[in-house]
Amino acid sequence: MKELNVAIIGYKFMGKAHSNAWQNITNFFDVPIKPVMKVACGRNEEDVQEFADRWGWEEIETDWKKVVERDDIDIIDISTPPALHYPIAIAAAKTGKHIFCEKPISLTTDEALKMYEVAEEAGVVHYLNHNYRRCPAVMLAKQMIDEGKLGKIYHWRGCYLQSWLMDPEFTLTWHMKKEIAGSGASGGINSHSVDLARFLVGEIKSVSAMAKTFIKERPISEGTAGGTFASGESTGEMGKVTVEDAISMVVEFENGALGSFEATTFAIGRENYNYFEIYGSKGAVIFNLERMNELQYYSGEDGEGEKGFRTILATDSSHPYISAWWPPAHNIGYEHEFHHAVFDFLNAIDSGEPIAPNFYDGYLGMKVLEAGLNSAETKKQIDIS
Amino acid sequence: MKELNVAIIGYKFMGKAHSNAWQNITNFFDVPIKPVMKVACGRNEEDVQEFADRWGWEEIETDWKKVVERDDIDIIDISTPPALHYPIAIAAAKTGKHIFCEKPISLTTDEALKMYEVAEEAGVVHYLNHNYRRCPAVMLAKQMIDEGKLGKIYHWRGCYLQSWLMDPEFTLTWHMKKEIAGSGASGGINSHSVDLARFLVGEIKSVSAMAKTFIKERPISEGTAGGTFASGESTGEMGKVTVEDAISMVVEFENGALGSFEATTFAIGRENYNYFEIYGSKGAVIFNLERMNELQYYSGEDGEGEKGFRTILATDSSHPYISAWWPPAHNIGYEHEFHHAVFDFLNAIDSGEPIAPNFYDGYLGMKVLEAGLNSAETKKQIDIS
Amino acid sequence: MKELNVAIIGYKFMGKAHSNAWQNITNFFDVPIKPVMKVACGRNEEDVQEFADRWGWEEIETDWKKVVERDDIDIIDISTPPALHYPIAIAAAKTGKHIFCEKPISLTTDEALKMYEVAEEAGVVHYLNHNYRRCPAVMLAKQMIDEGKLGKIYHWRGCYLQSWLMDPEFTLTWHMKKEIAGSGASGGINSHSVDLARFLVGEIKSVSAMAKTFIKERPISEGTAGGTFASGESTGEMGKVTVEDAISMVVEFENGALGSFEATTFAIGRENYNYFEIYGSKGAVIFNLERMNELQYYSGEDGEGEKGFRTILATDSSHPYISAWWPPAHNIGYEHEFHHAVFDFLNAIDSGEPIAPNFYDGYLGMKVLEAGLNSAETKKQIDIS
Amino acid sequence: MKELNVAIIGYKFMGKAHSNAWQNITNFFDVPIKPVMKVACGRNEEDVQEFADRWGWEEIETDWKKVVERDDIDIIDISTPPALHYPIAIAAAKTGKHIFCEKPISLTTDEALKMYEVAEEAGVVHYLNHNYRRCPAVMLAKQMIDEGKLGKIYHWRGCYLQSWLMDPEFTLTWHMKKEIAGSGASGGINSHSVDLARFLVGEIKSVSAMAKTFIKERPISEGTAGGTFASGESTGEMGKVTVEDAISMVVEFENGALGSFEATTFAIGRENYNYFEIYGSKGAVIFNLERMNELQYYSGEDGEGEKGFRTILATDSSHPYISAWWPPAHNIGYEHEFHHAVFDFLNAIDSGEPIAPNFYDGYLGMKVLEAGLNSAETKKQIDIS
Repeated sequence: MKELNVAIIGYKFMGKAHSNAWQNITNFFDVPIKPVMKVACGRNEEDVQEFADRWGWEEIETDWKKVVERDDIDIIDISTPPALHYPIAIAAAKTGKHIFCEKPISLTTDEALKMYEVAEEAGVVHYLNHNYRRCPAVMLAKQMIDEGKLGKIYHWRGCYLQSWLMDPEFTLTWHMKKEIAGSGASGGINSHSVDLARFLVGEIKSVSAMAKTFIKERPISEGTAGGTFASGESTGEMGKVTVEDAISMVVEFENGALGSFEATTFAIGRENYNYFEIYGSKGAVIFNLERMNELQYYSGEDGEGEKGFRTILATDSSHPYISAWWPPAHNIGYEHEFHHAVFDFLNAIDSGEPIAPNFYDGYLGMKVLEAGLNSAETKKQIDIS
Repeated sequence: MKELNVAIIGYKFMGKAHSNAWQNITNFFDVPIKPVMKVACGRNEEDVQEFADRWGWEEIETDWKKVVERDDIDIIDISTPPALHYPIAIAAAKTGKHIFCEKPISLTTDEALKMYEVAEEAGVVHYLNHNYRRCPAVMLAKQMIDEGKLGKIYHWRGCYLQSWLMDPEFTLTWHMKKEIAGSGASGGINSHSVDLARFLVGEIKSVSAMAKTFIKERPISEGTAGGTFASGESTGEMGKVTVEDAISMVVEFENGALGSFEATTFAIGRENYNYFEIYGSKGAVIFNLERMNELQYYSGEDGEGEKGFRTILATDSSHPYISAWWPPAHNIGYEHEFHHAVFDFLNAIDSGEPIAPNFYDGYLGMKVLEAGLNSAETKKQIDIS
Repeated sequence: MKELNVAIIGYKFMGKAHSNAWQNITNFFDVPIKPVMKVACGRNEEDVQEFADRWGWEEIETDWKKVVERDDIDIIDISTPPALHYPIAIAAAKTGKHIFCEKPISLTTDEALKMYEVAEEAGVVHYLNHNYRRCPAVMLAKQMIDEGKLGKIYHWRGCYLQSWLMDPEFTLTWHMKKEIAGSGASGGINSHSVDLARFLVGEIKSVSAMAKTFIKERPISEGTAGGTFASGESTGEMGKVTVEDAISMVVEFENGALGSFEATTFAIGRENYNYFEIYGSKGAVIFNLERMNELQYYSGEDGEGEKGFRTILATDSSHPYISAWWPPAHNIGYEHEFHHAVFDFLNAIDSGEPIAPNFYDGYLGMKVLEAGLNSAETKKQIDIS
Repeated sequence: MKELNVAIIGYKFMGKAHSNAWQNITNFFDVPIKPVMKVACGRNEEDVQEFADRWGWEEIETDWKKVVERDDIDIIDISTPPALHYPIAIAAAKTGKHIFCEKPISLTTDEALKMYEVAEEAGVVHYLNHNYRRCPAVMLAKQMIDEGKLGKIYHWRGCYLQSWLMDPEFTLTWHMKKEIAGSGASGGINSHSVDLARFLVGEIKSVSAMAKTFIKERPISEGTAGGTFASGESTGEMGKVTVEDAISMVVEFENGALGSFEATTFAIGRENYNYFEIYGSKGAVIFNLERMNELQYYSGEDGEGEKGFRTILATDSSHPYISAWWPPAHNIGYEHEFHHAVFDFLNAIDSGEPIAPNFYDGYLGMKVLEAGLNSAETKKQIDIS
């Protein structure tokens, strides 16, 4: 089988989730290309070495620029905080690497468009990892919508609720610094909702929004925060939160549907509540990431007096990606979405067909997110040109 | 026991729900005043007579003005479509009647304010029947919020979803005519959500909204539509829908909380889905009218590793109003909210204490609803002065 | 309209629930016979007078034998503890009264059979109030089963879980005395489950069971316990519990289906959890009384990859009894089942057609319950002849 | 790190699930011993080679006896159908191998006891893979019970419902042949329920049961059935099903609790519905494998009027095993239970401490299962000595 060498840049939460997929994709899926885990790259040599040892990356680097320039690398996996996506992606595309990039795509719409243009010009496969599209229940919703089971869509009701920033003593990690993260709940989680809405309903035409920063100052942490969603060690000094804790948007889609989005890190009891409802003329679907193996479906064509939302366990071999895994009703988990992404990404490289979401999707999504923040600031509805 | 004579104006859906409460309030509740079902009033003599016979109203009238002028009437129950609320309420207040009025309060904010001022000047008890406040589970949520169990509130996520207008052949009933209904989903159902949000979270400071009329023309019906939520007989001609089918709003509350509202008659699978989530610094609650005997509650103070949303069956004798009904876990239904309202209304008359929601609540709610429609039209965020 | 005079014997929990139905049946339902609330009977004159005043019973009596002998009474409503069902029913039938009788039918199978025989001989209508059959969601399940939607039935999984006796300090009320109650969880709640199973699945052929009395002695109460499910005032002395707190049975139905029953008053968190699942060759249904407006339905004929349990809100006008009440998704409550029973009972009197469940159903149900207790004692499977 | 060589016998469903755990255990967990995937063994050389290639087993064998005799093998993983568990385990123990064995332990109680005795005598670690104990939500339930959060336990209500044998055309696979499988629903799935009940509630004292074989003859398949839960190719001839499709039991535990078990392959809509409720004097828990990341918990110590079943997402780092995986509310799946088992198994080898469930648990469980089948046949309650 053809082999391609992969280099991963970043080794925290996403580094782990990506490594797991690269590592055992061939156990479960029949792929046209075998990925070879060549290089892991990160700034802290000791940490990245430990990471590489654990996951089987053959070598390490501490400078991403060197990685990108290596001739023996075919695929760059960008698992860094957002601010580095743009420079790495541009450099990687220019040296002809295929790119598997974490979300959100970039700090700005302009960066995203440029990333798309350079990648296209270079003819590389570019993938943006809005992983929730590849949850089987979500992919099933997509199939049903494409088959017309929902008819004309009238409403999208989405939200992404978390609570990890509610403690005022939680330190100022990079997620709350605009220069690194680009934005707060908008890029961090609303980007996923917007991606799902675009995937399932269509493009968004106009946005009205409000945003809030509930805690405006936080303790500064010594060094970078350790892990994902973890508070650091306070220095005693306070620093300014420069991103929003929450954003709520109402939107109109190009097809006339009305939509709403709510993203927050201040919803107690919700830790990763990525939820949506879609209502159409013929049916409706509901998805809740906390019950990710389920899709709720209402069919207007069920018999009189027998209609109701039904809970489909999206774990049948007929459901997307499931035949690779376990028998019916044997749940899969969060991590499996990454396998599905790697599987499709390798197939895209092999076939030369584009994969979605890609950098163009990232660009279109960023326009919506930017319009949202813009609307919140100007107190006006923003049309997306 | 003291007795007061009641006259009801309107005999359709709300006439039935109100009559049921007036009629058997004394069976379940110990009231300070016994209501006497004196007069039922409606334009169609035959229909109103049948209604009066069924429910035990002693007499009938076909002209509401005569009813309001009668000296032997103490309480006017306004169960008509919205356009008549204002003239009846003004007239009733001026002749010193206590007023039990259906929602939405009026066609405009100005009318609502005037209703409030005239009723106050007359010294009558005025009650606006946003009945869902008196669902025991909702009242329990209020108690918990007042006791500080949710802490500082960050988010309100409310919606009121129905589907009864999805069929384009459904005729143009009064609900879709601005001159009778005032508005569509805004006054019809969003008014309930706004009332609940004001009750549970507080006053609203600013609104950004979008509205949609999905079906812009409908068959004109011969005569008025029969009952509630029922299509009439088409004449073959088409008429213009002059209200919105759906409205979505994002709001900021005076206390800094962020809120969202969605009201629609185009959500397939939802027939009376009045739903809200409230997230605070210490806890959260969720209510779903389709499971009206339940309140979901998340306490941030539950033990480590044991936190979760719990389903409280709000049917214990310790819960609001329940001791009047049945043993624990013996569900009550929609209609019981009207008994609770009548119970509190009679006590308010007896005690001279105000009851809520009243016409002032109606006025404040209308300001929010009007701001919503205004924002949708002007594409700007509207501050509520 | 034809009128018939009703006398009710017993005025506690069931007296209240029955009175409510007799009183306002004509408001909601078009009945062929108007029930006149003539006499309320109870041993405590003061209490029964208060009850009669509240609910509008015209007269009172303290001796049920006098009531039964009155010529002006057409219908006897037996709302007493179980031990009195037999003597009252026999006497009432012999004087030609129609009988509306609370469950469980009697203390023994022999009594039940005799009640049936005497009532049949007298030609009176006899109804046994296993009210849960007339919950619209349950009646919908019955319709679906009769239409073949479940196919051949393989499994009944039923339970009735309560927790009101868990406190060892709860006094020895009549419910725990075999001579008054007949049995504990068996007659009190398992009788409902068995009735539902017989209604929905069919007759039961054999039973294996275990029973437990978790608390074997309890404080003796001064006088009778106040209300339903309420502990009395302890005298300081202890008395013996002579009935079971819990019973679990596995059964085989005549049609070959396998079934299980669990009834207990020791399931913390459950107050009136009457629950069942029925699995057939083509579909399944699930009912939970705590969500009594819902029926879960699984259809094996739904599309590939789209199957799942769906939640039917049994509140459409097409659903049994609902057209008399409110628009779709406006919940009804526990008490409405009694209206449905009264409605069908009055129609049975008018038409001369039998109503179910009746005393024969009571007899067949008692055979199953007795077999259960018998099996628990003998440790053998009992065949029901 | 110390390394031990593993040989796996069997390469179908369980071969896959086990291989996955052996292969990447070190990525997620810090183990004291590194397992080396040495040999995969199966009767069909071609198939086992493909399996070994996919999962990284270094060598293959087709005769399990040779594998067991190899000196370089330290751990035998028995992933075969039940009939082979006994001979392989005995042989493996006698050559000093640690044993990781699939359930059900054996065909008979005698075999199970012998396996236990031989393994103990040999001083090897023996583990029986009732994997559901190591679902974090189940382990959390165990912790809570051990901490006394449920108090004295009164009720176990368990079931394991599947539907894969409902089609009469489904061929006679080994699962329906007593000589290979030992039993049907009893060993196949009820064994899991019994293991969970023993784990969480305690030992079982007596059993009353009924069993059913709904389809008594099935088409004979050419060769063995392909994969798990898959029908084979019919030969046109019919053969006899020699095991039960369903078994229902009521039991008494040694601590006085009452329990019920239902296991069936004829519950339409249920594919892997391993479900239980446990009620104690102070609290209750509910688990449903289809929502395996959740544990329902009712605490009798929650505030008055605020009690209810709460849904704990057992995905916090404080929950058993979770810190090895992902951040809160990032679901894990079915397969992760096998990692937890391998992790604990390797630690048991390292520490010399026993692991549970082991062959003695298997023996005790088999006694219960055998008593169940025995009771169904003799129609008597069986005491477990």
